[in-house]
Amino acid sequence: MRIAVDAMGGDNAPQAIVEGVMMAAKEFHDVEFILFGKEDAIRTYLTDETNIKIVHTDEKINSDDDPVRAVRRKKNASMILAAQAVKNKEADALFSAGNTGALLTAGLLIIGRIKGIDRPGLMPTLPVVTGANQVFNLMDVGANADTKPENILQYAILASYYAKFVRGVENPSVGLLNNGTEENKGNDVTKRAYALLAAEKEINFIGNVEARELLNGVADVVVTDGFTGNAVLKTIEGTAMSMMKLLKNAVYDSGIKGKLGGALLKGSLSEMKDKLDYSRYGGAVLFGVKAPVVKTHGSTEKESVYFTIRQIHEMLNSHVIDDLVTYFESKAEAEAILVESKKETE
Amino acid sequence: MRIAVDAMGGDNAPQAIVEGVMMAAKEFHDVEFILFGKEDAIRTYLTDETNIKIVHTDEKINSDDDPVRAVRRKKNASMILAAQAVKNKEADALFSAGNTGALLTAGLLIIGRIKGIDRPGLMPTLPVVTGANQVFNLMDVGANADTKPENILQYAILASYYAKFVRGVENPSVGLLNNGTEENKGNDVTKRAYALLAAEKEINFIGNVEARELLNGVADVVVTDGFTGNAVLKTIEGTAMSMMKLLKNAVYDSGIKGKLGGALLKGSLSEMKDKLDYSRYGGAVLFGVKAPVVKTHGSTEKESVYFTIRQIHEMLNSHVIDDLVTYFESKAEAEAILVESKKETE
Repeated sequence: MRIAVDAMGGDNAPQAIVEGVMMAAKEFHDVEFILFGKEDAIRTYLTDETNIKIVHTDEKINSDDDPVRAVRRKKNASMILAAQAVKNKEADALFSAGNTGALLTAGLLIIGRIKGIDRPGLMPTLPVVTGANQVFNLMDVGANADTKPENILQYAILASYYAKFVRGVENPSVGLLNNGTEENKGNDVTKRAYALLAAEKEINFIGNVEARELLNGVADVVVTDGFTGNAVLKTIEGTAMSMMKLLKNAVYDSGIKGKLGGALLKGSLSEMKDKLDYSRYGGAVLFGVKAPVVKTHGSTEKESVYFTIRQIHEMLNSHVIDDLVTYFESKAEAEAILVESKKETE
Repeated sequence: MRIAVDAMGGDNAPQAIVEGVMMAAKEFHDVEFILFGKEDAIRTYLTDETNIKIVHTDEKINSDDDPVRAVRRKKNASMILAAQAVKNKEADALFSAGNTGALLTAGLLIIGRIKGIDRPGLMPTLPVVTGANQVFNLMDVGANADTKPENILQYAILASYYAKFVRGVENPSVGLLNNGTEENKGNDVTKRAYALLAAEKEINFIGNVEARELLNGVADVVVTDGFTGNAVLKTIEGTAMSMMKLLKNAVYDSGIKGKLGGALLKGSLSEMKDKLDYSRYGGAVLFGVKAPVVKTHGSTEKESVYFTIRQIHEMLNSHVIDDLVTYFESKAEAEAILVESKKETE
């Protein structure tokens, strides 16, 4: 398998990207990496070229570039050339830590949607705090600000496939994020989405779930519109960060006693921090396009680059996207036959 | 001033309610409390009857009652009689820790909206973690699942009045919760709300704010639709609870060293917990109805009852609702004159 890497995306590029790729290359001998970016800058950090190819380009998309304009105009940017490589079947997946909006746009416009998917969504894997080694997938966290009930149904199918074939969860449970657990709760979109999800046999829908229960592992997959999902993800991040800061202050502002207590707890507190650091599970997948397109935080370090490549490796190994393509194509065919037979009987 | 108290609402009623009222009665000699509920049960916890009146009723609304049905059928429930007392000008404000949906319904149907307000919203006061003694108001956190841009504009005016006259913030800043800080970000509702907020001279609109920055004190007032606000509030609560659990585990699962560290940090950690406990700032105001209607958590203890009554006392002292009534009435009059003069010129 071949992974196209945008070596210039993110705050720590190309160093963190190249070092992370080398960590992954050492472990995954079946992967060929194609690094797009400034060749000399990439070479500075490259210590072993086994299975690594560089495609030089001087152009790159910045984090503050307007996404659509950048994708249209910066034809030779590292991210765009990497996406083109996937489109041209020269690579099987795309990795970037760059401008999220531009990556979404490149995924949609260059790599293209799976036939039958109206709106690909952005899906991170998040930690369950109360369970051991448990995670859940949240979709969509912001690819689409305006979302129809039909989109949410598709998120549920996509994320269920991921949980089943990539994470190995048998019959993954799917919850709809809502403002109450009762069936009749919600706004106009979630009420209609509830009906669609309840009628869909392909998924294991368990009903409405509340945001308060997300980190308690209330479901293997939680679906929501991209606006709410974005707010929820950022609230989790903001609250966790604020609490770590409070905790730090509690240790450092409380004199010798606090510092000693902090020193004694150091190991446990760093374990706690690890538990919350969801970069271990990889990046956010732009799910619904024809190949794995995965994004990590702009502030990514080499470890998260490694974890994200491991995730892409698992996605490619599982053939989850091929399965989804088959599923949505056969669904579209079945619907076409239905429409045809209706016409005939009329 | 007279506060109507639903003495039977909440998990710890009537004990926590009555004990909290007595704490408040000791401090606020200008308040008369009218307690609605089972007289003998209330009297069990009542040690001083100065400024306290009891109105006996056997009926009460349960936490799992259907809100609208409960308000319509349980005419003699403690919450309903308390709301009737406000409507009949026998009381100036309503306090309850009972069924939130029923309280919203009672507020709307019995006490009634301020003229010119389409949809009252639910507004808690939340802690700013990084600042000293700073808080912010978030509105709406769930009174309305489906929200129009015009509702969000009204939330901004309402919450600004609260921040200014009850909290004493000069020229309170107002942020619109959105999926990015740039002006063009958002879904259909927030884009249109942005335009309305930017054009409103009555408020100090500072633009879009992200959920990640809420606890960092990004604005004095943050407005959002009730569906997103509900998800954000519950995510803050859920994340904070999960982290406290992690922290506890970090202390107790790490042997003698961890326990010793925990003991040394005990004071600081409990300060941290206090900082996050926003019941100190009172309850959530159903804002936009003709009197202060304030709700605390169902699991409330006497302290939060006391804090919420202090908040109602401040609201009544500030005359914030009278000011809002005047503002929206004069606005409606000005609009009527405008319509009239347009007709005349036609």
